[in-house]
Amino acid sequence: MSTSSSESVMVPTMANEDRHVDGRVKEEIKLLNATEDWFGGVTVVMSEHMEIADFVPRLRHSISKWKEQGKRGLWMELPINQSHLVDSVVKEGFRFHHAESDYVMLVRWLPEDEPDTLPTNASHRVGIGAFVLNGNNEVLVVMEKNGGFKGTEYWKMPTGVVDEGEDIYAAAVREVKEETGIDAEFVEILAFRQSHKSFFSKSDLFFVCMMRPLSSNITAQESEIAASKWMPIKEYVEQPYNKKHGQFQKVAEICRDRAAGAHVGFSAVPVSSASGKEVYLYCNNNKGSKL
Amino acid sequence: MSTSSSESVMVPTMANEDRHVDGRVKEEIKLLNATEDWFGGVTVVMSEHMEIADFVPRLRHSISKWKEQGKRGLWMELPINQSHLVDSVVKEGFRFHHAESDYVMLVRWLPEDEPDTLPTNASHRVGIGAFVLNGNNEVLVVMEKNGGFKGTEYWKMPTGVVDEGEDIYAAAVREVKEETGIDAEFVEILAFRQSHKSFFSKSDLFFVCMMRPLSSNITAQESEIAASKWMPIKEYVEQPYNKKHGQFQKVAEICRDRAAGAHVGFSAVPVSSASGKEVYLYCNNNKGSKL
Repeated sequence: MSTSSSESVMVPTMANEDRHVDGRVKEEIKLLNATEDWFGGVTVVMSEHMEIADFVPRLRHSISKWKEQGKRGLWMELPINQSHLVDSVVKEGFRFHHAESDYVMLVRWLPEDEPDTLPTNASHRVGIGAFVLNGNNEVLVVMEKNGGFKGTEYWKMPTGVVDEGEDIYAAAVREVKEETGIDAEFVEILAFRQSHKSFFSKSDLFFVCMMRPLSSNITAQESEIAASKWMPIKEYVEQPYNKKHGQFQKVAEICRDRAAGAHVGFSAVPVSSASGKEVYLYCNNNKGSKL
Repeated sequence: MSTSSSESVMVPTMANEDRHVDGRVKEEIKLLNATEDWFGGVTVVMSEHMEIADFVPRLRHSISKWKEQGKRGLWMELPINQSHLVDSVVKEGFRFHHAESDYVMLVRWLPEDEPDTLPTNASHRVGIGAFVLNGNNEVLVVMEKNGGFKGTEYWKMPTGVVDEGEDIYAAAVREVKEETGIDAEFVEILAFRQSHKSFFSKSDLFFVCMMRPLSSNITAQESEIAASKWMPIKEYVEQPYNKKHGQFQKVAEICRDRAAGAHVGFSAVPVSSASGKEVYLYCNNNKGSKL
């Protein structure tokens, strides 16, 4: 085999990753664009359109290169407008990892002799309930237009789902404002409840937040709230719905005890994480925070 | 147009959903098998193989029927071995909702004049750290073989991820047993930390659990744990790694204070949920649980 000098003629404009030792060029296939991570893995984000016929050989070629390089986790993010590629990625040994509205993430663990250490998917949705207590021992309550309490005549505390990337205490402030127009500040977490199979196979964490109101005039949200008012705490606790449902009764009693100064909650304490981010640690801060 | 009497000849063995008023039969298309939910939605689980050419007309026909019936959320669960259908479902107006290893769930909100009230996807992963304190004021600690603490010489508490459907207190018992061989029972939650963008766009909740050991002989897990031992609490708190990382220092101090009886945590109290499930409410139970 001679070392050909005609390379520049044989090589198309693409980079040649697979030049043979004799100078001949194998089939020209570009690697997929990938970024490396700290755990020996690579991530491909298919942000531009590619036809299946172009994509599959590039994916296969890339996988064989990544194997040679000792890569571990292979991540493939397919935006929803590239969903024509999902089946091809699955056929190359990937499984689903997670999905959001606008993309699906697939993953393949390459090492054959090492257990998979890929991060697990998110398992919990997080919600809050806001116990807003004013100086007259009255609780801020709402009656919902729709949802699970419809027809129960139950005056409940404002509740809502914590948004992606949102702190629990901030979600409580936001939901109170959205549902009732009341400005309030977070005091502490009084209790939380974990439940399973809340939606599909997923679980739910619900945090009861004690809040201090900073305003008093209620403007109920038109789309979701039928009515909202300040209700004496005794009346709130003694509602028939509470008596029938253990979880609601217990939470109402905790709120009543807290109003009487006889329950200890967890304050939000800012601390720096191992990676230097500011995060909140919720704990009894020994200061006995009082309204 | 005459009312034909030759129907029985024209009609194949399939049910005819779309007979014209004149008795002629439109193209025969079966509805997809779907189950109804309490919220006016329908769910299709594509558990059996179907070719795209058969699937698309049935999906379109089903959607038009569901529209007529006033259905709201349309859910389409595609097992990973049916991933050839993903693109067709997206092209009919569905978006991704979530995915697990072996399936992807897509959804389409049908009502045009109502805001989408579909449940959000899970946003948090949940982890635990186990503060196991024995009668000699010693803490159960481990040194990990791999992971973020590698090379730090940090003796840490056993930690782990809460499995799908697992209670927080149960995960703490399991992880202590797996990593160290120690049997322990859950006492209370001392603190928890929320952090964001822990993996992809997802958040993380980490619960520090106080545990009472029921055995003392350590058998460290070979695959993950380099070493494990009982360490005096003072020595545990004063490790250099803690001093450099605010979150770790604060958690170590909370553990020290709890060992001295000066910190109040949240016990696990079983209560019944609105739907009658037994769930755990974590709160200060006013009993002052002591070791």
